[in-house]
Amino acid sequence: MKIHDTPGFPNPARIRIVLAEKGLESQVQFVKVDLVGAEHKQAAFLAKNPAGVVPVLELDDGSYLSESIAITTYLDNLDGNPTLTGKTPKEKAVILMMQKRADDQLIDAVGIYFHHATPGLGASLQAYKSPEWAHREEWGNKQRDKFVQGLKYFNQVLATQAYIAGEQFSIADITAFAALMHADAAGIAIPEDCVALLAWRSKVAERPSVKNRSGQAFDAEDLRSLGF
Amino acid sequence: MKIHDTPGFPNPARIRIVLAEKGLESQVQFVKVDLVGAEHKQAAFLAKNPAGVVPVLELDDGSYLSESIAITTYLDNLDGNPTLTGKTPKEKAVILMMQKRADDQLIDAVGIYFHHATPGLGASLQAYKSPEWAHREEWGNKQRDKFVQGLKYFNQVLATQAYIAGEQFSIADITAFAALMHADAAGIAIPEDCVALLAWRSKVAERPSVKNRSGQAFDAEDLRSLGF
Repeated sequence: MKIHDTPGFPNPARIRIVLAEKGLESQVQFVKVDLVGAEHKQAAFLAKNPAGVVPVLELDDGSYLSESIAITTYLDNLDGNPTLTGKTPKEKAVILMMQKRADDQLIDAVGIYFHHATPGLGASLQAYKSPEWAHREEWGNKQRDKFVQGLKYFNQVLATQAYIAGEQFSIADITAFAALMHADAAGIAIPEDCVALLAWRSKVAERPSVKNRSGQAFDAEDLRSLGF
Repeated sequence: MKIHDTPGFPNPARIRIVLAEKGLESQVQFVKVDLVGAEHKQAAFLAKNPAGVVPVLELDDGSYLSESIAITTYLDNLDGNPTLTGKTPKEKAVILMMQKRADDQLIDAVGIYFHHATPGLGASLQAYKSPEWAHREEWGNKQRDKFVQGLKYFNQVLATQAYIAGEQFSIADITAFAALMHADAAGIAIPEDCVALLAWRSKVAERPSVKNRSGQAFDAEDLRSLGF
């Protein structure tokens, strides 16, 4: 298998954490995509993923999977023991529900803020941001507000349970953790009164899949080299 | 089980089609939510689903599931024979990928257009639409453009395969079908040159789960009574 992505970025981090959780890192070859040079918006990449975003998983049969939830579900089910996406109908459903809330309220919101209300990854990508639409900065700022509201919601959830979808670590935690990582890079502070959320974040940061540099869960140096 | 929803609306239609596909209709009691009266934005409903949208599945243990993909995954796995969400790791992943594309490019886009660039469901809901944000009509119109682009993408997909995620009908088809139903209500025409998409739509409309009124897949009369 090959992963087309860029180390140090939030959605790639989701899959790298999944690979480490599942012990699959040695089975994957990484192919670096030049996000700052807008490689993901060119025809060769769009043939792999028409949505023009990383990561993309290339299977050994030559087909491509994109969308983090789809890639995660694939990787999590390979060994017949889906530890991150649930086993019973209810577990699967609750994890998908909380995963979607983490997508909508956290990782998508902070991503839109970053790309539309800040300079984002720089000049090469400006052409792909609907330049004819004059109000995208205002829209981006609304998404920052939505993200902060989302933090408060998840803080409330984590006040009564160990992880975002219940008592077990799941893909929903990985998504939310990557979103907070993006918020750091985008300069959005986590409110100090989100005590349960901050405690959860510290706990997740200690997981071997996240903590070990060999896990390549994220790469702060890469982010800094981009001017974050 | 109880479903809190409103017949005739696109996201409720998704779950009603799933129930009919799985032969589960007799096991569910429907509780009508007054969307036009903004019941879904009040505290009693928000306690069931903090996102303030229908449908919500109330389980017999008193817990609530929301998000159509989560509810569908629950219902599809109850009999141990997931016909709509995939069985192998690759089937599951491809269906989730295409389902997410149908969410992002079709049903979410047309929903935002409807609620933000048209009068939507009327006066009671205006207060829940970020009135301080002046440009929401322009944003809504951008989502209409995104929806039409999405139609072209799915038309291309359906030119070479029978259904949206491959040769089998899946939850991705249900999502896209419900989105096209919403587009009709919102006054967005499907371009005539989307030949493969239109042929797929006719084929899906003939499925018993969609065609039979008893399946309550949608209720054109309800939509008309709301002024569509």
